[in-house]
Amino acid sequence: MTPKNTSVDAKGYNNLDLHPQDEKFMRLALKQAQKAEQLGEVPIGAIIVDKSGKIISKSTNLRETKLTTLGHAELVAIHRACKKLNSWRLIDCTLYVTLEPCFMCAGALVQSRISRVVYGAADPKGGALESLSQLGNDPRLNHRFNVTAGVLAEESTALLKNFFKKKRSK
Amino acid sequence: MTPKNTSVDAKGYNNLDLHPQDEKFMRLALKQAQKAEQLGEVPIGAIIVDKSGKIISKSTNLRETKLTTLGHAELVAIHRACKKLNSWRLIDCTLYVTLEPCFMCAGALVQSRISRVVYGAADPKGGALESLSQLGNDPRLNHRFNVTAGVLAEESTALLKNFFKKKRSK
Repeated sequence: MTPKNTSVDAKGYNNLDLHPQDEKFMRLALKQAQKAEQLGEVPIGAIIVDKSGKIISKSTNLRETKLTTLGHAELVAIHRACKKLNSWRLIDCTLYVTLEPCFMCAGALVQSRISRVVYGAADPKGGALESLSQLGNDPRLNHRFNVTAGVLAEESTALLKNFFKKKRSK
Repeated sequence: MTPKNTSVDAKGYNNLDLHPQDEKFMRLALKQAQKAEQLGEVPIGAIIVDKSGKIISKSTNLRETKLTTLGHAELVAIHRACKKLNSWRLIDCTLYVTLEPCFMCAGALVQSRISRVVYGAADPKGGALESLSQLGNDPRLNHRFNVTAGVLAEESTALLKNFFKKKRSK
């Protein structure tokens, strides 16, 4: 599907382009989400890519497996990328995540000084990049990043719906 | 000093009481902040206490030492508390932190299902519990917690001011 750039535009984001490799990288994030499901985790996946297009970290959601609040896929991917780069700053990097990040993860992306975030499905109840807040473009904060929304959103939503449907039928 | 409950009240928080042990626990958080300074870190400290008043985790700010975006004192204390309780939920726990948490840390506190947060100095440029947002009392989110602000705020501010003054003079 095409990204929902019009809705993002209305929120004031300044980079609405779908980059040539976005779908490829989002497919890899979806693979991570599928791994989460095998672990009994809510299927969400994330990967981080540097400016040359090299993948520097990836993670599934690991909250139940690792029993930590910090187990969201985005936070684990950020931490692993920091270890790889030996820096708490992820300058010129892009994070791909299958679901719109929550306040914790969106706040971490601001703190990380990341350049760009691409997400799949919107999260109307908890998303902090578009749905409940626009933390990627908040003029009060000391860092902003570009956001592209809606990349392979239907695949991400299908994974989540299927997971919760199976869970309810157990 | 007495907590600035009036300003918090205006934001809609529902627990404005200073509990008998709040100053004692905030002094321990300040001790953690002093440790951060010895490491060359911005002096911020946090501790987490369970409902019986037992300290279950503590941390200084470790962002430069550990070179990770997730090195803020609150996140490290949350992660350590999860490991101690073997759970990603910190139900019936209270976090004490010397500076108002940012969006990342405030979002993590929502995710952790913590019961109460007590902080020292306000952070007008980045604080997400009172200054820029009121994440502890956001009716759109699936968890809310009580917030008490301004406990030993002057001591916390003095530590921070002194740190940045020394840094500038180097």
